[in-house]
Amino acid sequence: MSLMFEHETLGQRVLFGSGKAATNLAGEIARLGAKRVMVIAAEQEEDVAETVCSGISPVLRWNEVVMHVPVERAEKARVAAGEADVDLLVSVGGGSTTGLAKAIALTTGIPIVAVPTTYAGSEATNVWGMTEAARKSTGVDDKVLPMTVIYDAELTLTLPADLSVASGMNALAHCVDSMWGPRADPINQALAAEGIRALSQGLPLVKNDPQDLAGREQALYGAYLAAVAFASAGSGMHHKICHVLGGTWNLPHAQTHATVLPYVLAFNAPEAPDAAARIGAAFGTEDPIAALNRIRRILDAPKALNDYGFTEANIPEAVDLILPVIPASNPRTPTRENLAGLLAAAAAGTTPGL
Amino acid sequence: MSLMFEHETLGQRVLFGSGKAATNLAGEIARLGAKRVMVIAAEQEEDVAETVCSGISPVLRWNEVVMHVPVERAEKARVAAGEADVDLLVSVGGGSTTGLAKAIALTTGIPIVAVPTTYAGSEATNVWGMTEAARKSTGVDDKVLPMTVIYDAELTLTLPADLSVASGMNALAHCVDSMWGPRADPINQALAAEGIRALSQGLPLVKNDPQDLAGREQALYGAYLAAVAFASAGSGMHHKICHVLGGTWNLPHAQTHATVLPYVLAFNAPEAPDAAARIGAAFGTEDPIAALNRIRRILDAPKALNDYGFTEANIPEAVDLILPVIPASNPRTPTRENLAGLLAAAAAGTTPGL
Repeated sequence: MSLMFEHETLGQRVLFGSGKAATNLAGEIARLGAKRVMVIAAEQEEDVAETVCSGISPVLRWNEVVMHVPVERAEKARVAAGEADVDLLVSVGGGSTTGLAKAIALTTGIPIVAVPTTYAGSEATNVWGMTEAARKSTGVDDKVLPMTVIYDAELTLTLPADLSVASGMNALAHCVDSMWGPRADPINQALAAEGIRALSQGLPLVKNDPQDLAGREQALYGAYLAAVAFASAGSGMHHKICHVLGGTWNLPHAQTHATVLPYVLAFNAPEAPDAAARIGAAFGTEDPIAALNRIRRILDAPKALNDYGFTEANIPEAVDLILPVIPASNPRTPTRENLAGLLAAAAAGTTPGL
Repeated sequence: MSLMFEHETLGQRVLFGSGKAATNLAGEIARLGAKRVMVIAAEQEEDVAETVCSGISPVLRWNEVVMHVPVERAEKARVAAGEADVDLLVSVGGGSTTGLAKAIALTTGIPIVAVPTTYAGSEATNVWGMTEAARKSTGVDDKVLPMTVIYDAELTLTLPADLSVASGMNALAHCVDSMWGPRADPINQALAAEGIRALSQGLPLVKNDPQDLAGREQALYGAYLAAVAFASAGSGMHHKICHVLGGTWNLPHAQTHATVLPYVLAFNAPEAPDAAARIGAAFGTEDPIAALNRIRRILDAPKALNDYGFTEANIPEAVDLILPVIPASNPRTPTRENLAGLLAAAAAGTTPGL
């Protein structure tokens, strides 16, 4: 088969080191020559931000961080950044914090140095999102891509194990779905495979002991690669299904991802031998489905959509909504029948691949 | 072991498609809004350049391409670019052609779209090189990184099989050495592994039939990844050895690389189990040394430095020169004894790893 693709690699500097965030941030700010730094951190992360920023002297600290970046909050933060003549944004926190920094960068062009404290991955993409009157709008703009990301796994030690695992399974789903997203290519597949390797090694360690720094490092590194690969490859079948289920039946985000993923893998793997081999190799095995089932068991991840209120009766409507949005790039052609079969298995929690 | 690294990802757009160079180039120039294009192609590549540029109207065509980019040639091309008010450079050719475009970009800031016709890989790096009075100077500057690279494996079909294999083995050496270069990290290791996978699949096909387009695609794609990984990881033990041998005994570049590589792999693999596993997996096997020996046999690659005039008698001097320049990052600590052993085996062509 002929090799044909378009791949956009986003230029970014990554500094990865446990216990190094404060040193790396001070060094990076000196390197960039920034003089007027605005630090963005949610109230509950102010202590962490304090530590991370111990080597710098910000001109402005901002803690008005709200989920989904309401547009009026973004505007308020932009005005404050303008009034303080800010020349660099430093975000310390999860997706909402990075999201606010991106919203400021979008209209002002002020560069961002991101210090993530979760596995959200937004720091590695040029995607922004804001909400206005409960409607979310998103877009792609290179201005919102952080110039530098500073990863410090020590900052993730306080993430509860449950949330870490759920969020890590979400990152794993980004990797797996990158294998057949609409813009999937061998480069983002290779990065996704490396993400699977790291996440599958790290998450069980984190589950076993949330204070395990080596596990935290692998999980954080894997979550970064998951974001890079997924932003490049785009939403595949898995994310289309979860988006519909979450939006229509208000199913919980992380649990839905964790439940659906192995069924999508089992659905596509037979028609995508290259992707299946890559995923298997990344798990360190030849059978990717067994490997994913195994890690799901170890992590005690959710198994059945029934447990969250999605039942057999919802399947016809779900099929109507999902079928038209599955990308043409999907290795196995979805039909009403095979999609209904997938959803029935995911609802009941039947072992995927059997 | 703690995960710590600095990784600079260079932002670049890659358009990969056989037979698509002309279409992709015209589309890219329209996308960038360039109005005054200078096309750089060596005399012997003017026909290829003509085809590639069939959909655009350059204001200037330049064919004064010389190996190693002499600084006076660079200056002449810069003046011509300035006089023609050029706003985009298009290079069509191998390393010397890309190198001239980079030399122009270095002082003028004019962006480059590169259309490579060999496996040189310069198009994927921000490294420039020029020669003045037979002395080579090199540097790193993001201005010389092509914005876009257009790969079309059809343009490589006329590369002779011998040269393709030698150049491909060189790319393979870039991948392997990226595993333990001074700035090696898991990201460039993952990309290097993907490069090994592609090269090890493509090169035997090219050897068997230089017109095999699928083989050409894999080789070209692998050469691109080799350049990305190597520019990021930096020269490891293998390249330090080859640099000394080439410079001191005037050994042929490609043959030296092909000969030395398996000995360096056999030398380091026992002390670098992770890297060895990654290399093995990329070759599709558990034993990376056997895999490399096998591909060397298939490709009928050179086996003994003796054949190029490097003998047992040269080893003490070679050890003196090589020992101090091996990076501290090398997995196995080099000594006079083990380095002499490596060189003796490479001189005689003893099967590596035995």
